[in-house]
Amino acid sequence: MNDKAQAFHDIPDIPGLPLPLSGETRLHVIVGDPIAQAGSPRLFNQAFRRRGANAVLVPLHVTPEHLPQALAALRHFGNLDGIVVTVPHKISVMELIDEVQDSGRRIGAVNAIRRLPDGRLVGDNFDGKGCIRGLAQAGHGVRGKSVLIVGGGGAGRAVAHAMADEGPSRLRLFDIDPQRQAELVASLSRAQPGLAVEAGTADPEGFEVVVNCTPLGMRPSDPYPVDPARLSPSALVVDVILKPVVSPLLEAAAQRGCATQPGIRMLEGQVEAICDFFGVGTPA
Amino acid sequence: MNDKAQAFHDIPDIPGLPLPLSGETRLHVIVGDPIAQAGSPRLFNQAFRRRGANAVLVPLHVTPEHLPQALAALRHFGNLDGIVVTVPHKISVMELIDEVQDSGRRIGAVNAIRRLPDGRLVGDNFDGKGCIRGLAQAGHGVRGKSVLIVGGGGAGRAVAHAMADEGPSRLRLFDIDPQRQAELVASLSRAQPGLAVEAGTADPEGFEVVVNCTPLGMRPSDPYPVDPARLSPSALVVDVILKPVVSPLLEAAAQRGCATQPGIRMLEGQVEAICDFFGVGTPA
Repeated sequence: MNDKAQAFHDIPDIPGLPLPLSGETRLHVIVGDPIAQAGSPRLFNQAFRRRGANAVLVPLHVTPEHLPQALAALRHFGNLDGIVVTVPHKISVMELIDEVQDSGRRIGAVNAIRRLPDGRLVGDNFDGKGCIRGLAQAGHGVRGKSVLIVGGGGAGRAVAHAMADEGPSRLRLFDIDPQRQAELVASLSRAQPGLAVEAGTADPEGFEVVVNCTPLGMRPSDPYPVDPARLSPSALVVDVILKPVVSPLLEAAAQRGCATQPGIRMLEGQVEAICDFFGVGTPA
Repeated sequence: MNDKAQAFHDIPDIPGLPLPLSGETRLHVIVGDPIAQAGSPRLFNQAFRRRGANAVLVPLHVTPEHLPQALAALRHFGNLDGIVVTVPHKISVMELIDEVQDSGRRIGAVNAIRRLPDGRLVGDNFDGKGCIRGLAQAGHGVRGKSVLIVGGGGAGRAVAHAMADEGPSRLRLFDIDPQRQAELVASLSRAQPGLAVEAGTADPEGFEVVVNCTPLGMRPSDPYPVDPARLSPSALVVDVILKPVVSPLLEAAAQRGCATQPGIRMLEGQVEAICDFFGVGTPA
């Protein structure tokens, strides 16, 4: 925490409250349509504050029609350092920026863009990195572990690629759509040629890490994404869904004695990873 | 103060601290080049907070070269309500917006732009209105009074037009440049045909309101803009300069028993007037 943050340590750390703003405040935005529901301003301003950074993140409501013009202008805002990208712009921004880094390219979507001092825009995807970071924060690692990922949509692709990069002993993918499942397995094999990647069932038996990347569990009537009775009590069970905070799967897993990680940890891990990417202060 | 502001009443009212930010926060920017020195984020966020508004003002560094592109984009930021304009853009923005209101047209400069829900941009100038508002806040009026304004630059034009609108008994203008003086008198006569406007000397004798709109007093070696010994003790003496907070003229005037208003009150009055123009909350 730097002197400036220290001087304001008596302000309660309310989520969404940045340090006091000035002409020197570095600017960050979240771009989406709609934007009113976005939780990022709350999370990022809290993180900026913890990092002692004279920085703020504000919501920016931009429709798809005006996205190219908006990005062209953001490029020339001299005090802008970062752009968080949300629905429905995560794919369409890719062709509007100068460089898409590895994770963004592999996942096919960008959710954060860094503005370099010369105006160049570099994007990447932090969904999967956020999951890994959340696990690391809790002392969990994936290296050398057997991993089952259920669901090969946006979140599944992101988490699968991030976990593949960590060097698990093997990685099994399940998706209800066989074509999507096959495509993701192929993409992972290309990215990590030495890794044992397989398409398989959602049976969690024998897996040390089990990750739900489907929306199952958000509605009370949803079935479990995997059968909790087949979870090993020593397994780590991870869920990406945010509501409810503790999903039915995590509840059942905890009852079996499993370690668990709820979606909020992935989100928090992502905020930290994006703060680092934007170069905002130093981690608290 | 609304419920939301009330809920955060325990946060000290530090200048520059908005209410906690969310996806619903209404956005305002100050556009300038450079921008790091701007005091507006501090002043406006304090005012927004007092008004209990979920609103924020952030600095935006835009060079003249990129101003047209920036304004074209700002027009389509759906949650943006207002743009404060500072050096060097106050004149050049006029041709980039849809409508310039009366004060802006007369002064020939715009320092605040309101974004309407349909994306139209309407600008006006609040320098002079801020001065009037600051005076009103302290219980002073200009109506029916004899007024001397010294200095016919940007601030002088703004203050002269705002005071002319208040219905003084007479208005005298002095500027060291006879052409500038004559032009401002002509412009005031056009705007208020019934008003007694004259070009004259800087002698304050007999004037009930005396306003310094020159930079004289900022440097220790500056002469007084008007001779304090010629001030009536019942006169109200107004200065636009911000540093020092109490100018040598105001110090001398106060010693003669005059009421005084420093430049900071004009600035504060302007912030309030612009908040109203932007439609931010309700005055505290």
